Amino acid sequence: MRPSDRLVELKIDLPAITAPVGSYVPALRSGRHIFTSGQLPIRDGKLLYAGKVPQDVSVEEATEGARIAILNGLAAAAQVAGGIDAITQIVRVGIFVNSGAGFTKQPTVGNGASDLLVEIFGEAGKHVRAAVGVAELPLNAAVEVELIVEVS
Amino acid sequence: MRPSDRLVELKIDLPAITAPVGSYVPALRSGRHIFTSGQLPIRDGKLLYAGKVPQDVSVEEATEGARIAILNGLAAAAQVAGGIDAITQIVRVGIFVNSGAGFTKQPTVGNGASDLLVEIFGEAGKHVRAAVGVAELPLNAAVEVELIVEVS
Amino acid sequence: MRPSDRLVELKIDLPAITAPVGSYVPALRSGRHIFTSGQLPIRDGKLLYAGKVPQDVSVEEATEGARIAILNGLAAAAQVAGGIDAITQIVRVGIFVNSGAGFTKQPTVGNGASDLLVEIFGEAGKHVRAAVGVAELPLNAAVEVELIVEVS
Repeated sequence: MRPSDRLVELKIDLPAITAPVGSYVPALRSGRHIFTSGQLPIRDGKLLYAGKVPQDVSVEEATEGARIAILNGLAAAAQVAGGIDAITQIVRVGIFVNSGAGFTKQPTVGNGASDLLVEIFGEAGKHVRAAVGVAELPLNAAVEVELIVEVS
Repeated sequence: MRPSDRLVELKIDLPAITAPVGSYVPALRSGRHIFTSGQLPIRDGKLLYAGKVPQDVSVEEATEGARIAILNGLAAAAQVAGGIDAITQIVRVGIFVNSGAGFTKQPTVGNGASDLLVEIFGEAGKHVRAAVGVAELPLNAAVEVELIVEVS
Repeated sequence: MRPSDRLVELKIDLPAITAPVGSYVPALRSGRHIFTSGQLPIRDGKLLYAGKVPQDVSVEEATEGARIAILNGLAAAAQVAGGIDAITQIVRVGIFVNSGAGFTKQPTVGNGASDLLVEIFGEAGKHVRAAVGVAELPLNAAVEVELIVEVS
């Protein structure tokens, strides 16, 4: 089953990519890879989860935030690839969690991104990842993710 | 206009690369990419901005620090590439800001690096990036940046 | 001398790779590169160093932790490569140190990983790296490392 068919089945719409402002771009192809910029849990222009996990944002909310953020990354990668079906392998996901003192469940938060990728891409969605707890994030987002994919 | 011509026009000298010590190197080519090590705002062997942003180092100073650090990265990449004009595309910039409590303007600091790359490389200078706020950095630097570029 | 011979000479056994659970994998090949997931100082299923450096875990212990973690990364990469001798170049190491207030010796901790790579691979073990101090890490590990290598 193609990733685009899976999106229909999962009732997921890839979000629109906000027009790039400034000196960096949402995604860029180099050779057979597409790299994305760091993505936040933003939907319809609004940051959904702000603050530290778990003090301000619950683990469940941050996990949902990682899912929303990676969807933004997928949308940016798909736009550069010429459609999501041109993505043949998810390679690497970076997970940065805005972590309050003593929070060590960054992998749980990261699963919000990782599990969605496998739901959409199946075996080709399995990737490597690094999940760490950072001190602060842009806009006070609860989580930021970045993505590298392979294209045909 | 070639990047080397732009450097002249901008009155920018690429700094000398400090001789590598230890088990890692400032930059390394693998396939068509050059990766750099994390770069600090060091000029003439001296760390210019140390401490947390914005409590110890202002946003403006940290932004200038990111510019100085990425210039060190460019110099390292250019040395491996055989000159800055062999760099055909800036691919990815990683921005780590030594962030004090509540600081969320990592993108502003990152613009110090990103804008310089576009000043030098034009459209080929546009890249993806991830900017995050870390708890501590080597030598207490205010900012650390890393770089991936494509060569012909 | 081949890396596998050096391992014998150094009396180092590559650890067994724990079976992947969930949506991500320990290592993945894409083109001529193998990427690994973030690796912790785990041996025989047990996390050896937990807490902040240097308040809970000494610099020496964290450095040993980085060595153990990169060995886990090498084992994962070697498994995907079809043996450690298929790894022709160490490309990049990412070092995330669980840093207590005021700790700025992330490079010293990172040397635990970097020096081991050069002990095993010689010149081909020299790599780029970025070492930063993060707020928290999975399982409260003292250090996390990730690895990119080139294969023939």
